[in-house]
Amino acid sequence: MNDYRIIEVKESILADNDRDAEELRRELKAQNTFLLNLMSSPGAGKTTTLVRTISMLKDEFNIGIMEADIDSDVDAKTITDTGARAIQLHTGGMCHLDADMTRQGLREFGTEDLDLVVLENVGNLVCPAEFDTGAVRNAMILSVPEGDDKPLKYPLMFQIADVVLINKCDVLPVFDDFSKEDVVERIRMRNPNCDIIFISAKTGEGFDEWTDWLRKEIKAFQEA
Amino acid sequence: MNDYRIIEVKESILADNDRDAEELRRELKAQNTFLLNLMSSPGAGKTTTLVRTISMLKDEFNIGIMEADIDSDVDAKTITDTGARAIQLHTGGMCHLDADMTRQGLREFGTEDLDLVVLENVGNLVCPAEFDTGAVRNAMILSVPEGDDKPLKYPLMFQIADVVLINKCDVLPVFDDFSKEDVVERIRMRNPNCDIIFISAKTGEGFDEWTDWLRKEIKAFQEA
Repeated sequence: MNDYRIIEVKESILADNDRDAEELRRELKAQNTFLLNLMSSPGAGKTTTLVRTISMLKDEFNIGIMEADIDSDVDAKTITDTGARAIQLHTGGMCHLDADMTRQGLREFGTEDLDLVVLENVGNLVCPAEFDTGAVRNAMILSVPEGDDKPLKYPLMFQIADVVLINKCDVLPVFDDFSKEDVVERIRMRNPNCDIIFISAKTGEGFDEWTDWLRKEIKAFQEA
Repeated sequence: MNDYRIIEVKESILADNDRDAEELRRELKAQNTFLLNLMSSPGAGKTTTLVRTISMLKDEFNIGIMEADIDSDVDAKTITDTGARAIQLHTGGMCHLDADMTRQGLREFGTEDLDLVVLENVGNLVCPAEFDTGAVRNAMILSVPEGDDKPLKYPLMFQIADVVLINKCDVLPVFDDFSKEDVVERIRMRNPNCDIIFISAKTGEGFDEWTDWLRKEIKAFQEA
Protein backbone atom coordinates (compact mmCIF):
# COMPACT_ATOMS: atom_id res chain seq x y z
CA MET A 1 0.00 0.00 0.00
CA ASN A 2 3.05 2.26 0.34
CA ASP A 3 3.04 3.65 -3.14
CA TYR A 4 1.34 6.49 -4.89
CA ARG A 5 0.38 7.66 -8.32
CA ILE A 6 1.08 10.96 -10.05
CA ILE A 7 -1.97 12.65 -11.58
CA GLU A 8 -1.76 15.54 -14.05
CA VAL A 9 -4.68 17.83 -13.17
CA LYS A 10 -5.90 20.24 -15.84
CA GLU A 11 -6.97 23.83 -15.41
CA SER A 12 -10.70 24.18 -15.00
CA ILE A 13 -12.87 25.59 -17.77
CA LEU A 14 -15.74 26.29 -15.39
CA ALA A 15 -16.63 29.95 -15.21
CA ASP A 16 -18.02 29.83 -11.72
CA ASN A 17 -15.46 28.29 -9.40
CA ASP A 18 -17.35 29.37 -6.29
CA ARG A 19 -20.46 27.46 -7.32
CA ASP A 20 -18.36 24.43 -8.23
CA ALA A 21 -16.63 24.57 -4.83
CA GLU A 22 -20.03 24.55 -3.06
CA GLU A 23 -21.06 21.53 -5.13
CA LEU A 24 -17.83 19.72 -4.20
CA ARG A 25 -18.46 20.45 -0.51
CA ARG A 26 -21.92 18.83 -0.84
CA GLU A 27 -20.40 15.76 -2.53
CA LEU A 28 -17.81 15.42 0.24
CA LYS A 29 -20.44 15.87 2.96
CA ALA A 30 -22.51 13.08 1.36
CA GLN A 31 -19.59 10.67 1.87
CA ASN A 32 -18.56 12.30 5.20
CA THR A 33 -15.02 13.14 4.08
CA PHE A 34 -13.53 16.25 5.71
CA LEU A 35 -11.32 18.12 3.23
CA LEU A 36 -8.66 20.48 4.62
CA ASN A 37 -6.88 22.91 2.28
CA LEU A 38 -3.35 23.51 3.61
CA MET A 39 -1.48 26.53 2.21
CA SER A 40 1.82 28.33 2.84
CA SER A 41 4.92 29.83 1.25
CA PRO A 42 7.45 27.41 -0.24
CA GLY A 43 9.38 25.74 2.56
CA ALA A 44 7.19 26.80 5.52
CA GLY A 45 6.85 23.17 6.61
CA LYS A 46 3.56 21.85 5.20
CA THR A 47 4.82 18.31 4.65
CA THR A 48 6.69 18.05 7.96
CA THR A 49 3.57 19.33 9.76
CA LEU A 50 1.49 16.68 7.98
CA VAL A 51 3.89 13.87 8.87
CA ARG A 52 3.59 14.65 12.60
CA THR A 53 -0.17 15.23 12.34
CA ILE A 54 -0.66 11.83 10.67
CA SER A 55 1.42 10.08 13.34
CA MET A 56 -0.87 11.54 16.04
CA LEU A 57 -4.22 10.95 14.29
CA LYS A 58 -3.79 7.78 12.23
CA ASP A 59 -5.42 5.50 14.82
CA GLU A 60 -8.52 7.74 14.98
CA PHE A 61 -9.13 8.59 11.32
CA ASN A 62 -8.59 7.16 7.85
CA ILE A 63 -6.33 9.82 6.34
CA GLY A 64 -5.37 10.59 2.76
CA ILE A 65 -3.01 13.30 1.52
CA MET A 66 -3.08 14.95 -1.91
CA GLU A 67 0.26 16.61 -2.65
CA ALA A 68 -0.02 19.37 -5.26
CA ASP A 69 3.19 20.52 -6.94
CA ILE A 70 4.25 21.94 -10.23
CA ASP A 71 6.88 19.23 -10.49
CA SER A 72 8.58 16.48 -8.43
CA ASP A 73 7.11 13.87 -6.11
CA VAL A 74 9.37 14.25 -3.07
CA ASP A 75 6.44 15.12 -0.76
CA ALA A 76 4.29 12.15 -1.79
CA LYS A 77 7.27 9.90 -1.09
CA THR A 78 7.69 11.42 2.38
CA ILE A 79 3.99 10.98 3.18
CA THR A 80 3.76 7.35 2.06
CA ASP A 81 6.64 6.58 4.43
CA THR A 82 4.21 7.39 7.29
CA GLY A 83 1.85 4.66 6.08
CA ALA A 84 -0.84 7.17 5.08
CA ARG A 85 -2.33 7.07 1.61
CA ALA A 86 -0.96 9.75 -0.70
CA ILE A 87 -1.33 10.92 -4.24
CA GLN A 88 0.78 13.42 -6.14
CA LEU A 89 -1.04 16.04 -8.24
CA HIS A 90 0.95 17.84 -10.90
CA THR A 91 -0.57 21.21 -11.80
CA GLY A 92 1.11 21.64 -15.19
CA GLY A 93 2.82 24.86 -14.11
CA MET A 94 -0.32 26.29 -12.46
CA CYS A 95 0.25 28.30 -9.28
CA HIS A 96 -2.90 27.15 -7.46
CA LEU A 97 -5.71 24.57 -7.43
CA ASP A 98 -9.36 25.37 -8.05
CA ALA A 99 -12.39 23.23 -7.15
CA ASP A 100 -12.44 21.28 -10.39
CA MET A 101 -8.72 20.44 -10.22
CA THR A 102 -9.29 19.31 -6.62
CA ARG A 103 -12.20 17.12 -7.74
CA GLN A 104 -10.05 15.52 -10.46
CA GLY A 105 -7.53 14.62 -7.78
CA LEU A 106 -10.17 13.30 -5.36
CA ARG A 107 -11.74 11.09 -8.06
CA GLU A 108 -8.43 9.53 -9.05
CA PHE A 109 -7.51 9.11 -5.41
CA GLY A 110 -10.79 7.41 -4.38
CA THR A 111 -11.79 9.00 -1.08
CA GLU A 112 -15.08 7.29 -0.13
CA ASP A 113 -13.49 5.44 2.80
CA LEU A 114 -11.48 8.42 4.09
CA ASP A 115 -12.48 10.59 7.10
CA LEU A 116 -9.85 13.24 6.48
CA VAL A 117 -8.24 14.35 3.23
CA VAL A 118 -5.62 17.08 3.29
CA LEU A 119 -4.90 18.96 0.08
CA GLU A 120 -1.36 20.27 0.33
CA ASN A 121 -1.66 23.22 -2.05
CA VAL A 122 1.15 24.71 -4.18
CA GLY A 123 3.63 26.68 -2.03
CA ASN A 124 2.48 30.24 -2.71
CA LEU A 125 1.01 32.95 -0.44
CA VAL A 126 -0.86 34.72 -3.24
CA CYS A 127 -2.80 32.73 -5.83
CA PRO A 128 -4.12 29.75 -3.82
CA ALA A 129 -6.01 32.21 -1.59
CA GLU A 130 -8.00 33.40 -4.61
CA PHE A 131 -9.56 30.02 -5.44
CA ASP A 132 -12.03 28.14 -3.27
CA THR A 133 -10.97 24.49 -3.54
CA GLY A 134 -14.19 23.10 -2.06
CA ALA A 135 -12.45 22.36 1.24
CA VAL A 136 -14.39 22.47 4.51
CA ARG A 137 -11.63 24.49 6.17
CA ASN A 138 -8.57 26.50 5.11
CA ALA A 139 -5.39 26.18 7.16
CA MET A 140 -2.28 28.20 6.48
CA ILE A 141 1.25 27.95 7.83
CA LEU A 142 3.52 30.94 8.38
CA SER A 143 7.05 29.99 9.44
CA VAL A 144 9.14 32.10 11.81
CA PRO A 145 12.06 32.64 9.35
CA GLU A 146 9.64 34.32 6.89
CA GLY A 147 9.14 37.21 9.31
CA ASP A 148 6.29 38.71 11.32
CA ASP A 149 5.36 41.26 8.62
CA LYS A 150 3.75 38.77 6.22
CA PRO A 151 0.11 39.53 7.17
CA LEU A 152 0.78 43.12 6.04
CA LYS A 153 1.98 41.99 2.60
CA TYR A 154 -0.28 39.03 1.78
CA PRO A 155 -3.67 40.13 3.09
CA LEU A 156 -6.02 37.71 1.32
CA MET A 157 -4.25 34.55 2.50
CA PHE A 158 -4.64 35.59 6.14
CA GLN A 159 -8.19 36.81 5.52
CA ILE A 160 -9.47 33.44 4.26
CA ALA A 161 -7.66 31.23 6.81
CA ASP A 162 -9.73 29.43 9.46
CA VAL A 163 -6.55 28.63 11.35
CA VAL A 164 -3.01 30.05 11.11
CA LEU A 165 -0.20 27.78 12.29
CA ILE A 166 3.02 29.64 13.14
CA ASN A 167 5.65 26.97 12.48
CA LYS A 168 9.37 26.57 13.27
CA CYS A 169 8.93 28.12 16.73
CA ASP A 170 12.00 26.12 17.80
CA VAL A 171 14.16 28.67 15.92
CA LEU A 172 12.60 31.74 17.58
CA PRO A 173 15.82 32.30 19.60
CA VAL A 174 17.81 32.52 16.34
CA PHE A 175 15.25 34.75 14.55
CA ASP A 176 14.98 37.16 17.47
CA ASP A 177 13.46 39.97 15.39
CA PHE A 178 10.26 37.88 15.05
CA SER A 179 7.68 39.15 17.56
CA LYS A 180 4.86 36.79 18.54
CA GLU A 181 2.81 39.76 19.75
CA ASP A 182 3.29 41.70 16.50
CA VAL A 183 2.40 38.75 14.28
CA VAL A 184 -0.81 38.09 16.23
CA GLU A 185 -1.77 41.76 16.05
CA ARG A 186 -1.14 41.84 12.27
CA ILE A 187 -3.09 38.63 11.65
CA ARG A 188 -5.97 40.13 13.67
CA MET A 189 -5.94 43.20 11.35
CA ARG A 190 -6.75 40.83 8.48
CA ASN A 191 -8.90 38.32 10.30
CA PRO A 192 -10.42 38.86 13.74
CA ASN A 193 -11.81 35.32 14.00
CA CYS A 194 -9.25 32.75 12.88
CA ASP A 195 -7.48 30.52 15.37
CA ILE A 196 -3.73 31.06 15.78
CA ILE A 197 -1.54 28.22 17.04
CA PHE A 198 2.25 28.36 17.59
CA ILE A 199 3.86 25.05 16.61
CA SER A 200 7.12 23.35 15.78
CA ALA A 201 6.77 20.42 13.43
CA LYS A 202 10.34 19.51 14.38
CA THR A 203 9.89 19.32 18.18
CA GLY A 204 6.13 18.73 18.44
CA GLU A 205 5.43 21.99 20.32
CA GLY A 206 1.78 23.02 19.93
CA PHE A 207 0.67 19.79 18.26
CA ASP A 208 -1.74 18.83 21.05
CA GLU A 209 -3.57 22.10 20.46
CA TRP A 210 -3.42 21.72 16.66
CA THR A 211 -4.66 18.11 16.57
CA ASP A 212 -7.43 19.03 19.05
CA TRP A 213 -8.50 21.81 16.68
CA LEU A 214 -8.64 19.29 13.83
CA ARG A 215 -10.51 16.65 15.90
CA LYS A 216 -13.11 19.22 16.95
CA GLU A 217 -13.62 20.46 13.36
CA ILE A 218 -13.92 16.93 11.92
CA LYS A 219 -16.42 15.96 14.64
CA ALA A 220 -18.54 19.07 14.05
CA PHE A 221 -18.52 18.35 10.29
CA GLN A 222 -19.48 14.70 10.69
CA GLU A 223 -22.32 15.52 13.08
CA ALA A 224 -23.69 18.43 11.05
CA MET B 1 14.70 63.15 -0.39
CA ASN B 2 13.94 60.36 2.11
CA ASP B 3 10.35 59.78 1.15
CA TYR B 4 8.57 57.69 -1.41
CA ARG B 5 5.30 57.45 -3.27
CA ILE B 6 2.91 54.55 -3.63
CA ILE B 7 1.87 53.78 -7.22
CA GLU B 8 -1.02 51.50 -8.14
CA VAL B 9 0.12 49.63 -11.25
CA LYS B 10 -2.55 48.11 -13.49
CA GLU B 11 -2.48 44.74 -15.19
CA SER B 12 -1.26 44.98 -18.76
CA ILE B 13 -3.67 44.58 -21.65
CA LEU B 14 -0.85 43.91 -24.11
CA ALA B 15 -1.09 40.50 -25.71
CA ASP B 16 2.60 40.09 -26.32
CA ASN B 17 4.49 40.63 -23.06
CA ASP B 18 7.73 39.24 -24.49
CA ARG B 19 7.81 41.84 -27.26
CA ASP B 20 6.95 44.57 -24.77
CA ALA B 21 9.77 43.43 -22.48
CA GLU B 22 12.26 43.63 -25.36
CA GLU B 23 11.05 47.16 -26.11
CA LEU B 24 11.49 48.15 -22.45
CA ARG B 25 15.04 46.77 -22.48
CA ARG B 26 15.82 48.97 -25.49
CA GLU B 27 14.38 52.03 -23.72
CA LEU B 28 16.47 51.33 -20.62
CA LYS B 29 19.62 50.76 -22.69
CA ALA B 30 19.08 54.14 -24.38
CA GLN B 31 19.26 55.85 -20.98
CA ASN B 32 21.93 53.39 -19.67
CA THR B 33 19.87 52.21 -16.70
CA PHE B 34 20.55 48.62 -15.62
CA LEU B 35 17.32 46.97 -14.40
CA LEU B 36 17.62 43.95 -12.11
CA ASN B 37 14.54 41.80 -11.39
CA LEU B 38 14.86 40.33 -7.89
CA MET B 39 12.57 37.40 -7.03
CA SER B 40 12.08 34.96 -4.14
CA SER B 41 9.54 33.32 -1.82
CA PRO B 42 7.95 35.52 0.83
CA GLY B 43 10.45 36.19 3.59
CA ALA B 44 13.61 34.91 1.86
CA GLY B 45 15.35 38.22 2.53
CA LYS B 46 15.03 40.35 -0.61
CA THR B 47 14.81 43.67 1.25
CA THR B 48 17.59 42.88 3.76
CA THR B 49 19.82 41.80 0.85
CA LEU B 50 19.07 45.09 -0.92
CA VAL B 51 19.83 47.19 2.17
CA ARG B 52 23.33 45.69 2.44
CA THR B 53 23.87 45.83 -1.32
CA ILE B 54 22.98 49.55 -1.39
CA SER B 55 25.35 50.28 1.50
CA MET B 56 28.22 48.69 -0.46
CA LEU B 57 27.46 50.22 -3.88
CA LYS B 58 25.92 53.63 -3.19
CA ASP B 59 29.19 55.54 -3.75
CA GLU B 60 29.69 53.88 -7.15
CA PHE B 61 26.19 53.99 -8.64
CA ASN B 62 22.99 56.03 -8.51
CA ILE B 63 20.55 53.41 -7.23
CA GLY B 64 16.76 53.28 -7.20
CA ILE B 65 14.56 50.52 -5.77
CA MET B 66 11.00 49.69 -6.88
CA GLU B 67 9.22 47.67 -4.19
CA ALA B 68 6.31 45.63 -5.56
CA ASP B 69 3.76 44.34 -3.08
CA ILE B 70 0.09 43.49 -3.03
CA ASP B 71 -0.30 45.70 0.01
CA SER B 72 1.75 47.59 2.65
CA ASP B 73 4.75 49.86 2.27
CA VAL B 74 7.06 48.44 4.94
CA ASP B 75 9.80 47.61 2.42
CA ALA B 76 9.84 51.06 0.81
CA LYS B 77 10.17 52.56 4.30
CA THR B 78 13.13 50.27 5.05
CA ILE B 79 14.84 51.17 1.77
CA THR B 80 14.45 54.96 2.12
CA ASP B 81 16.17 54.66 5.50
CA THR B 82 19.34 53.70 3.58
CA GLY B 83 19.21 57.00 1.68
CA ALA B 84 18.51 55.27 -1.64
CA ARG B 85 15.56 56.36 -3.75
CA ALA B 86 12.56 54.05 -3.47
CA ILE B 87 9.05 53.77 -4.79
CA GLN B 88 6.30 51.40 -3.68
CA LEU B 89 4.28 49.65 -6.41
CA HIS B 90 0.95 48.14 -5.45
CA THR B 91 -0.13 45.36 -7.79
CA GLY B 92 -3.84 45.40 -6.97
CA GLY B 93 -3.77 41.78 -5.82
CA MET B 94 -1.69 40.58 -8.79
CA CYS B 95 0.86 37.89 -8.04
CA HIS B 96 3.55 39.13 -10.44
CA LEU B 97 4.70 42.08 -12.56
CA ASP B 98 4.83 42.09 -16.33
CA ALA B 99 6.78 44.47 -18.59
CA ASP B 100 4.01 47.05 -18.86
CA MET B 101 3.44 47.18 -15.09
CA THR B 102 7.21 47.59 -14.68
CA ARG B 103 7.22 50.43 -17.22
CA GLN B 104 4.37 52.19 -15.34
CA GLY B 105 6.51 52.04 -12.21
CA LEU B 106 9.66 53.24 -13.97
CA ARG B 107 7.83 56.22 -15.52
CA GLU B 108 6.36 57.35 -12.22
CA PHE B 109 9.71 56.81 -10.54
CA GLY B 110 11.76 58.78 -13.10
CA THR B 111 14.88 56.73 -13.75
CA GLU B 112 16.86 58.75 -16.34
CA ASP B 113 19.61 59.61 -13.83
CA LEU B 114 19.86 56.13 -12.29
CA ASP B 115 22.59 53.57 -13.12
CA LEU B 116 20.93 50.70 -11.31
CA VAL B 117 17.24 50.07 -10.66
CA VAL B 118 16.21 46.96 -8.72
CA LEU B 119 12.65 45.73 -9.08
CA GLU B 120 11.82 43.79 -5.92
CA ASN B 121 9.12 41.52 -7.33
CA VAL B 122 6.14 40.07 -5.38
CA GLY B 123 7.26 37.26 -3.03
CA ASN B 124 6.28 34.20 -5.03
CA LEU B 125 8.33 31.36 -6.57
CA VAL B 126 5.78 30.59 -9.28
CA CYS B 127 4.12 33.40 -11.23
CA PRO B 128 6.87 36.06 -11.44
CA ALA B 129 9.02 33.54 -13.33
CA GLU B 130 6.42 33.39 -16.11
CA PHE B 131 6.56 37.09 -17.03
CA ASP B 132 9.56 38.85 -18.56
CA THR B 133 9.67 42.25 -16.81
CA GLY B 134 12.08 43.82 -19.28
CA ALA B 135 14.96 43.52 -16.81
CA VAL B 136 18.52 43.06 -18.04
CA ARG B 137 19.12 40.27 -15.51
CA ASN B 138 17.02 38.03 -13.23
CA ALA B 139 18.27 37.35 -9.71
CA MET B 140 16.54 35.01 -7.29
CA ILE B 141 17.05 34.35 -3.62
CA LEU B 142 16.51 30.96 -1.98
CA SER B 143 16.86 31.03 1.81
CA VAL B 144 18.26 28.13 3.82
CA PRO B 145 15.11 27.63 6.00
CA GLU B 146 13.05 26.97 2.84
CA GLY B 147 14.98 23.76 2.22
CA ASP B 148 17.32 22.37 -0.43
CA ASP B 149 14.53 20.67 -2.42
CA LYS B 150 13.03 23.85 -3.88
CA PRO B 151 14.68 23.56 -7.34
CA LEU B 152 12.83 20.25 -7.70
CA LYS B 153 9.45 21.86 -7.00
CA TYR B 154 9.70 25.27 -8.67
CA PRO B 155 11.58 24.51 -11.89
CA LEU B 156 10.86 27.63 -13.96
CA MET B 157 12.11 30.11 -11.35
CA PHE B 158 15.51 28.40 -11.22
CA GLN B 159 15.55 27.98 -15.00
CA ILE B 160 15.22 31.71 -15.76
CA ALA B 161 17.62 32.96 -13.04
CA ASP B 162 20.95 34.47 -14.11
CA VAL B 163 22.14 34.29 -10.52
CA VAL B 164 20.82 32.35 -7.49
CA LEU B 165 21.68 33.80 -4.07
CA ILE B 166 21.42 31.26 -1.25
CA ASN B 167 20.62 33.51 1.72
CA LYS B 168 20.54 33.09 5.52
CA CYS B 169 23.70 30.93 5.46
CA ASP B 170 24.33 32.10 9.03
CA VAL B 171 21.60 29.66 10.18
CA LEU B 172 23.02 26.62 8.34
CA PRO B 173 24.09 25.08 11.70
CA VAL B 174 20.44 25.24 12.90
CA PHE B 175 18.96 23.92 9.63
CA ASP B 176 21.41 21.02 9.42
CA ASP B 177 19.30 19.04 6.94
CA PHE B 178 20.10 21.67 4.28
CA SER B 179 22.88 20.36 2.04
CA LYS B 180 24.90 22.91 0.05
CA GLU B 181 26.04 20.14 -2.30
CA ASP B 182 22.47 18.90 -2.93
CA VAL B 183 21.08 22.37 -3.58
CA VAL B 184 23.82 23.14 -6.10
CA GLU B 185 23.25 19.81 -7.86
CA ARG B 186 19.47 20.45 -8.03
CA ILE B 187 19.90 24.01 -9.31
CA ARG B 188 22.24 22.63 -11.98
CA MET B 189 19.49 20.18 -13.08
CA ARG B 190 17.34 23.21 -13.90
CA ASN B 191 20.02 25.61 -15.05
CA PRO B 192 23.57 24.61 -15.94
CA ASN B 193 24.78 28.19 -16.46
CA CYS B 194 23.53 30.47 -13.68
CA ASP B 195 25.89 31.76 -11.02
CA ILE B 196 25.29 30.49 -7.47
CA ILE B 197 26.47 32.58 -4.52
CA PHE B 198 26.08 31.67 -0.83
CA ILE B 199 25.33 34.79 1.25
CA SER B 200 24.04 36.03 4.57
CA ALA B 201 22.38 39.42 4.41
CA LYS B 202 22.61 39.46 8.21
CA THR B 203 26.39 38.90 8.56
CA GLY B 204 27.60 40.06 5.13
CA GLU B 205 29.02 36.65 4.13
CA GLY B 206 29.33 36.37 0.36
CA PHE B 207 28.55 40.03 -0.33
CA ASP B 208 31.97 40.77 -1.88
CA GLU B 209 31.26 38.07 -4.45
CA TRP B 210 27.66 39.22 -4.98
CA THR B 211 28.49 42.93 -5.41
CA ASP B 212 31.37 41.99 -7.75
CA TRP B 213 28.86 40.03 -9.85
CA LEU B 214 26.61 43.08 -10.00
CA ARG B 215 29.51 45.49 -10.81
CA LYS B 216 30.68 43.23 -13.64
CA GLU B 217 27.15 42.93 -15.10
CA ILE B 218 26.46 46.68 -14.93
CA LYS B 219 29.82 47.46 -16.54
CA ALA B 220 29.22 44.96 -19.36
CA PHE B 221 25.75 46.46 -19.94
CA GLN B 222 26.98 50.05 -19.99
CA GLU B 223 29.81 49.23 -22.41
CA ALA B 224 27.67 47.10 -24.73
